[in-house]
Amino acid sequence: MEKPTSLIIIFGATGDLAKRKLFPSLFHLYRKGKIGNKFAVIGVARRPWSQEQFQQHVQDSVLTSLGQAEDIESFVQHFYYQSIDVTDSSSYVQLNELANKLDVQYDLNGNRIFYLAMAPEFFGTITEHLKADGLTATNGFKRLVIEKPFGHDLESAKQLNNQIREVFSEDEIYRIDHYLGKEMVQNIEVIRFANALFEPLWNNRFISNIQITSSEVLGVEERGRYYDKSGALRDMVQNHMLQMVALLAMEPPIRLTTDEIRSEKVKVLRALRPIKGEDVHRYFVRGQYGPGAIRNEMVPGYRQEANVDPESNTETFVAGKLMIDNFRWAGVPFYIRTGKRMSAKSTKIVIQFKDIPMNLYYKMDQPLSPNLLVIHIQPEEGITLHLNAKKAGQNMETTPVKLDFANNSIDGMNTPEAYEKLLYDCMRGDATNFTHWDEVALSWSFVDEISKVWESTREEKFPNYAAGTMGPKAADELLAKDGFHWWPVSDFEVQSK
Amino acid sequence: MEKPTSLIIIFGATGDLAKRKLFPSLFHLYRKGKIGNKFAVIGVARRPWSQEQFQQHVQDSVLTSLGQAEDIESFVQHFYYQSIDVTDSSSYVQLNELANKLDVQYDLNGNRIFYLAMAPEFFGTITEHLKADGLTATNGFKRLVIEKPFGHDLESAKQLNNQIREVFSEDEIYRIDHYLGKEMVQNIEVIRFANALFEPLWNNRFISNIQITSSEVLGVEERGRYYDKSGALRDMVQNHMLQMVALLAMEPPIRLTTDEIRSEKVKVLRALRPIKGEDVHRYFVRGQYGPGAIRNEMVPGYRQEANVDPESNTETFVAGKLMIDNFRWAGVPFYIRTGKRMSAKSTKIVIQFKDIPMNLYYKMDQPLSPNLLVIHIQPEEGITLHLNAKKAGQNMETTPVKLDFANNSIDGMNTPEAYEKLLYDCMRGDATNFTHWDEVALSWSFVDEISKVWESTREEKFPNYAAGTMGPKAADELLAKDGFHWWPVSDFEVQSK
Repeated sequence: MEKPTSLIIIFGATGDLAKRKLFPSLFHLYRKGKIGNKFAVIGVARRPWSQEQFQQHVQDSVLTSLGQAEDIESFVQHFYYQSIDVTDSSSYVQLNELANKLDVQYDLNGNRIFYLAMAPEFFGTITEHLKADGLTATNGFKRLVIEKPFGHDLESAKQLNNQIREVFSEDEIYRIDHYLGKEMVQNIEVIRFANALFEPLWNNRFISNIQITSSEVLGVEERGRYYDKSGALRDMVQNHMLQMVALLAMEPPIRLTTDEIRSEKVKVLRALRPIKGEDVHRYFVRGQYGPGAIRNEMVPGYRQEANVDPESNTETFVAGKLMIDNFRWAGVPFYIRTGKRMSAKSTKIVIQFKDIPMNLYYKMDQPLSPNLLVIHIQPEEGITLHLNAKKAGQNMETTPVKLDFANNSIDGMNTPEAYEKLLYDCMRGDATNFTHWDEVALSWSFVDEISKVWESTREEKFPNYAAGTMGPKAADELLAKDGFHWWPVSDFEVQSK
Repeated sequence: MEKPTSLIIIFGATGDLAKRKLFPSLFHLYRKGKIGNKFAVIGVARRPWSQEQFQQHVQDSVLTSLGQAEDIESFVQHFYYQSIDVTDSSSYVQLNELANKLDVQYDLNGNRIFYLAMAPEFFGTITEHLKADGLTATNGFKRLVIEKPFGHDLESAKQLNNQIREVFSEDEIYRIDHYLGKEMVQNIEVIRFANALFEPLWNNRFISNIQITSSEVLGVEERGRYYDKSGALRDMVQNHMLQMVALLAMEPPIRLTTDEIRSEKVKVLRALRPIKGEDVHRYFVRGQYGPGAIRNEMVPGYRQEANVDPESNTETFVAGKLMIDNFRWAGVPFYIRTGKRMSAKSTKIVIQFKDIPMNLYYKMDQPLSPNLLVIHIQPEEGITLHLNAKKAGQNMETTPVKLDFANNSIDGMNTPEAYEKLLYDCMRGDATNFTHWDEVALSWSFVDEISKVWESTREEKFPNYAAGTMGPKAADELLAKDGFHWWPVSDFEVQSK
């Protein structure tokens, strides 16, 4: 395979994301030989750093992240720095001069990736200047990478999108949802469509419900200012949770191309039953953590966190019941649950199969466990199938057994980081694991109806769950009403072999 | 649960089976408290042993088999010995006196189990005497346990059955097929009927073929005289292999009772397509081992074994393709394969699922593996599911993964021996895991047609496989004709955790 060549211009290069994710991911790609010597990076930010300072910063980032790093000296030679005032044309002109120079120097064919790793309020300004000041007038490809969140609601997302679309076409825009870069999220479609076993069962005749949990142990940390205006619904549900629902629920695409897969995902989002008005209270539960104990240590409640309104009405937890009103899924609830300061850090998908006729092995004192397929997204990666088998011994009693596969056992190599995969995809021009505008728009229009109700009715019971628990009681009642319960994520550790 | 009480009269008590299986199994039941003090055993054989000699023999058997044995002294106190001439009434009269005495002494309610652990030519004589000399005229239950093989063909089996039925009714006859006592053979019905996942897929729409292998590394050992008259078809296929086919293929029984399960198994045997005349050569393959290497040591061929005809035409290997002509299984071959002196000792069932539409993940240079469900019967016990997952890393390539469950990991205790379970079942009167006459008759009538052809046409190519291999080439061709291949049993070791 030919190695992709490109200039990567990172806006916000002195920030946290660049340091923790982008530089180490680029280094991985470089070390593995996925990118050769035909690449260059221009770090762009306000601070008046020198190039040496920036290279040192990149080197430190990589070393901090990876411990040791061979070839780091030759790697950082590809990094350049440009201090910028994002509202000032002359900065861009200067940037373009550097870009043109590097284009020749590294033989980059005019390929340019603009990576906006910064606050979205500048996206419009920056893209406008990129065009006006000639940076996008290149004879190679031009691509724009945008970090989530894309807008704050449908209206703001539309506005942002319109600004960007003045400069970049839809297929030049790479909207990152880093969940789509995760190994086991990408595995969902392989598990579904590369196995004869599952697809025949993957519908409302055999599946009773699907549960997606993404829980964090951390609180808002330093993100209080941003988070208090956003909340879990916008921060997690609009993007990550709905993306996982779409991958689980989509019809088999005609082929594994970006367009075909996106088109099937969009169909799922279009089939999502809109939850509006009074229904919001029946289908969705919001939570906000109070003080509590995490690993025997007391932590403050959300309203006591730095940069958070002490009277905040923002949710740090969401549970919801989604219905997909199409032929395949009618009647099968997709339960989602996500929150901060929960008892475990875990992203897991549990597919619960319907009960079988209970005449054979069912006993009142020992009910038969339903079959479950568990997809472990993080921190462990793997698949577990929960079956029933005969209890060893004399009688024909059943016992639940687990068939395990842990992803780390395939090869010794660590699975690549989400950002590493996404950066490489972008350099190669594969947009499959990025979010299309149609998906963004549909997700926002679903989520906006819920926000609208929540913002207009203050939740007097906040805080309604203690830090270190799995959320408010109402989240359990949401499933109990339907005769189900959350499968505890902690029971589902997949075992390495 | 009440502990069963019974007198057990073992004919052939000085023989190999009693020593290796029956005494240790009874001891297990005793140690586990499944049988209490209300039981007694009379060992019966030709040899003029004293009771002390016999008790010592029992004790030695248990110690040899289990290493050490607490409570062995109190256990052997339940054992008595009676030397017998099986054709002489006075022996039986004497036996009956002892039986009556023990009945009172151990409070056995007149319950009697007659266990015939000896050559079948005496079965008729013995049962006749049991009745004529009053042993079956008891006011408790009377049960007859018969070791396989039950007859040599349908005709001889019928004759034997008629003799026995003069004395015992069908539901008093317990025909042992020790495969039915194996943990994982019993697990087949639980796997099938206690899981929502499998039953919807358990038919010709989703399964492409089923493979049952029961291979031994040993040769005929001391059984040459018997084996040379029997052969693998009668020794293994008529009973064990067809029983496993029946359990895999049966419809879900109405309930888990002896009669309902047997009735479903019988239906499978009735649906078995008869293989006759010329078809035998197309559906069945026979093999006989020649000299070869087993674990780097040369072993002689079958014709060089002790008590074997040096020109023997007897098969030590059988492979066959069975078709079950009913709605569920039409078009799905059940391949069976069994033999001696093969490269591995292994009994495994492989259910191969049909390929899925190959448009998504299939590549010419990397074909997608079919999904397989492997049931490990022995020596390992467990279940493995072979799926495809995403290969860790950048591209959407697939890799086969195995989801494992090893039976030994449920609890620390060893799973009980087949004979232990069957003896206990017999004492409690549960005949589910014994073979009904209808099954015996149907199996023989299927197998007889094959024997007829094989006996009438000498196989000039014998020996046609080397000891230490997986059988003759023709066994591979049998599947290749249909576009399949044997899944290698050695790849399928289930891993303990």
